[in-house]
Amino acid sequence: MGTAFVHPINVTWGDCDPARIAYTARLPAFALEAINGWWEAHLEGDGWYQMELDRNVGTPFVGLEMTFLSPVTPRHPLLCETFPAHLGTKSITFVVKGRQDGTLCFEGRFTSVFTLADQFKSQPAPADLRAIITPLIRAE
Amino acid sequence: MGTAFVHPINVTWGDCDPARIAYTARLPAFALEAINGWWEAHLEGDGWYQMELDRNVGTPFVGLEMTFLSPVTPRHPLLCETFPAHLGTKSITFVVKGRQDGTLCFEGRFTSVFTLADQFKSQPAPADLRAIITPLIRAE
Amino acid sequence: MGTAFVHPINVTWGDCDPARIAYTARLPAFALEAINGWWEAHLEGDGWYQMELDRNVGTPFVGLEMTFLSPVTPRHPLLCETFPAHLGTKSITFVVKGRQDGTLCFEGRFTSVFTLADQFKSQPAPADLRAIITPLIRAE
Amino acid sequence: MGTAFVHPINVTWGDCDPARIAYTARLPAFALEAINGWWEAHLEGDGWYQMELDRNVGTPFVGLEMTFLSPVTPRHPLLCETFPAHLGTKSITFVVKGRQDGTLCFEGRFTSVFTLADQFKSQPAPADLRAIITPLIRAE
Repeated sequence: MGTAFVHPINVTWGDCDPARIAYTARLPAFALEAINGWWEAHLEGDGWYQMELDRNVGTPFVGLEMTFLSPVTPRHPLLCETFPAHLGTKSITFVVKGRQDGTLCFEGRFTSVFTLADQFKSQPAPADLRAIITPLIRAE
Repeated sequence: MGTAFVHPINVTWGDCDPARIAYTARLPAFALEAINGWWEAHLEGDGWYQMELDRNVGTPFVGLEMTFLSPVTPRHPLLCETFPAHLGTKSITFVVKGRQDGTLCFEGRFTSVFTLADQFKSQPAPADLRAIITPLIRAE
Repeated sequence: MGTAFVHPINVTWGDCDPARIAYTARLPAFALEAINGWWEAHLEGDGWYQMELDRNVGTPFVGLEMTFLSPVTPRHPLLCETFPAHLGTKSITFVVKGRQDGTLCFEGRFTSVFTLADQFKSQPAPADLRAIITPLIRAE
Repeated sequence: MGTAFVHPINVTWGDCDPARIAYTARLPAFALEAINGWWEAHLEGDGWYQMELDRNVGTPFVGLEMTFLSPVTPRHPLLCETFPAHLGTKSITFVVKGRQDGTLCFEGRFTSVFTLADQFKSQPAPADLRAIITPLIRAE
């Protein structure tokens, strides 16, 4: 099996709102950061920036959904378990589960399509990416 | 019928990523800004800040889902049509539809629960808010 | 004399930290938003995005300084008086003074250089911009 | 002497603007993140959040200045050397120098005052903090 990929985030003061918890809009941002971290970890350090500029592969999002189960705070690191749950011909869906101190704080699904970055036109998932992603797909 | 509530957002350079469109994580932030604007418009200028500090009403989010249909850019104002689609005993669901130059760019559903802010404990929707919200509920 | 240019910002819940005031890092962001608004107001609606993409003029910042005098909150609109204080051959300095309810909350100076955007290479201030900016320069 | 404290930041796609470099407003945010990291490293893991909530010590900023020398990108980690340069009776000044791949990208000075957090009232630097900070003060 192997170990799940976990992207850690240091939640801080500036992420929090007057209710003393991370502001809601920070949570999708954290999850996206984790997905970018997944690419970096599996693509020789390349995140979205290098994918777009060096590989001419864009992955714009077409949808996301999140459930918020427990507040996120600076009290503990935010450990974002991140994995691909589905790979279609032209799309990919990632699942991100954010945990603090063993408690599931949020989970979400995030779907992107693959594009030729310089044309902003959809394309099938490039073969080299498909080869990397396929063995890592997991059911939720 | 009456007129739909629309919250305008001035999308700028700093909202955009190297693909020259608003970064994905900005879109939930824009939608939340629109929901806050809805409260301000219907609650005598009070947004989440005043609701929490002056009225002791919190509305933490328990879930959201968004579909992204067309890129958001600084070329046009982002007009966020915002309305309550459902009011439960202890929860409320808003729909936000973001349009630029007549094109639907995204739509989303955002569900919060009502809390006693100083106790971070759920409560039924306060009667005065319920009276304001109820006549404005619309099907999607 | 004429009227000062003022860019209004609606400060909200999501801008605030657990001290219930706008988080420090939001204040430079607000000031930059005001400078972008100054360009939009004086350049036929063009902000940094259109300047870069349509006019091939970049204005990357080389320095900034800010003094914070009074907390910024969602209680009042943040009115950012913004004007050019100096125009050099290749650089421009803006001053931004942010006020809420008549109180000066912050003031700052922000210096950019002009570049050929597609080459990221410095250039003298383009003549058409210089003609627009020069009569609006004010001492602080 | 000992080793300088360096706070690393993973700059990503979402930090960048259409010029393909980190947006200017992200740079003060990065520097503040580094200062918060300095506190965490020297105060048993406590950053601003814990200082405010657990120790009743606030450190609101009264001023900052930054010089931007070279663009920040996702190509390399951003290493923020961070140290206190001055400790006054009621204030502290940090210096942050951000480097990528050996190049100095920005440097800045950031001054805060100490407050009783629950009263938002200035106070002298608490003795325990002063004892930690004093030996770490460096000239720039």
